[in-house]
Amino acid sequence: MTVLHEETRDRILGAATDLFLSNGYDQTSTRQIAKILDISQPALYHYFGDKEALFVEVIRAVGSQIGREMWAVLDQTYSDPVDQLVDMTQAILTRHPRDVFTLIHGSFPSLSADNQRVLGMTFGRNYVAPIEAFFASGAVKLHENVDAHTASSFYITSLAPLFSTFHSLKPQQSRKEQIQQLLNLILYGVAR
Amino acid sequence: MTVLHEETRDRILGAATDLFLSNGYDQTSTRQIAKILDISQPALYHYFGDKEALFVEVIRAVGSQIGREMWAVLDQTYSDPVDQLVDMTQAILTRHPRDVFTLIHGSFPSLSADNQRVLGMTFGRNYVAPIEAFFASGAVKLHENVDAHTASSFYITSLAPLFSTFHSLKPQQSRKEQIQQLLNLILYGVAR
Repeated sequence: MTVLHEETRDRILGAATDLFLSNGYDQTSTRQIAKILDISQPALYHYFGDKEALFVEVIRAVGSQIGREMWAVLDQTYSDPVDQLVDMTQAILTRHPRDVFTLIHGSFPSLSADNQRVLGMTFGRNYVAPIEAFFASGAVKLHENVDAHTASSFYITSLAPLFSTFHSLKPQQSRKEQIQQLLNLILYGVAR
Repeated sequence: MTVLHEETRDRILGAATDLFLSNGYDQTSTRQIAKILDISQPALYHYFGDKEALFVEVIRAVGSQIGREMWAVLDQTYSDPVDQLVDMTQAILTRHPRDVFTLIHGSFPSLSADNQRVLGMTFGRNYVAPIEAFFASGAVKLHENVDAHTASSFYITSLAPLFSTFHSLKPQQSRKEQIQQLLNLILYGVAR
């Protein structure tokens, strides 16, 4: 691939990443992406085949970057495990303007079974696995009937309020306080 | 309105309810709804104006029924508060094949500000308020820094796994065990 080709490919990937992560799969069109970049749709298809292939590429690229960041946080030593979980969560929040679980799961009805499988694996490896490793590390003591996998699933499916203002728990909180509060709810629940 | 007109209106509402609740706002078209009922799209628009108005009508009708059921459960006496919360949750799950938070919140980018407001109020009154009342009742003792509103928001935004098989916590559980496990996680967290 020539340098010019690589540059065009990167520009397409960049614009597609912004739109897919902000608006979701169904609300984004390749026409929009091509228009932003001032290229033709056939030119875009030359690089990525179709919208579905482009979406898979976006999620794989973003996912593997987030996975690397989460594992790097996990390698560090923290005195407070909540702080470590805050930093792992920030890796997701920095890249995803809207709920990653809804983004990926919500795209499934529009994707082929093969691509669903690919994205399911990408999601498992890069988002769920580092969190599962955190809970398996013994950094926090789990309830007797809760294993690390259950804890990581509950974490992932409870993150929605951090992406949305519709249901933010207390609007006047700082971003970090908001994250800490939600993580405390996930870790220790609402009741004693 | 004649009986015939009312019947047609009800049939449209029934078909629209099935499709909107199963597939979401963006993935449902009035063309589909008209086709299922073997009527023309203009006939459908005669009753409901447009797709957006029809969606609002569906959510209002489903929401007010669920709200009534949740308040009725709240009026009963339970020895175990988790059982009461299970029954309130069943009222939502019986009608919603997919996550209600995602269904309503996910439709917002496609709706007018007025309709967003109407649906936000419907959601608050029928889904959030009964749960908030449960937490305010003292049936369970909340953590010091968690109020009933925060608890109800966390409950609502943590329900996703019950609607989806993508991340069901343990696939071999019965439906009731699955609900109980998730509610225990919401109430008491993953860690001790």
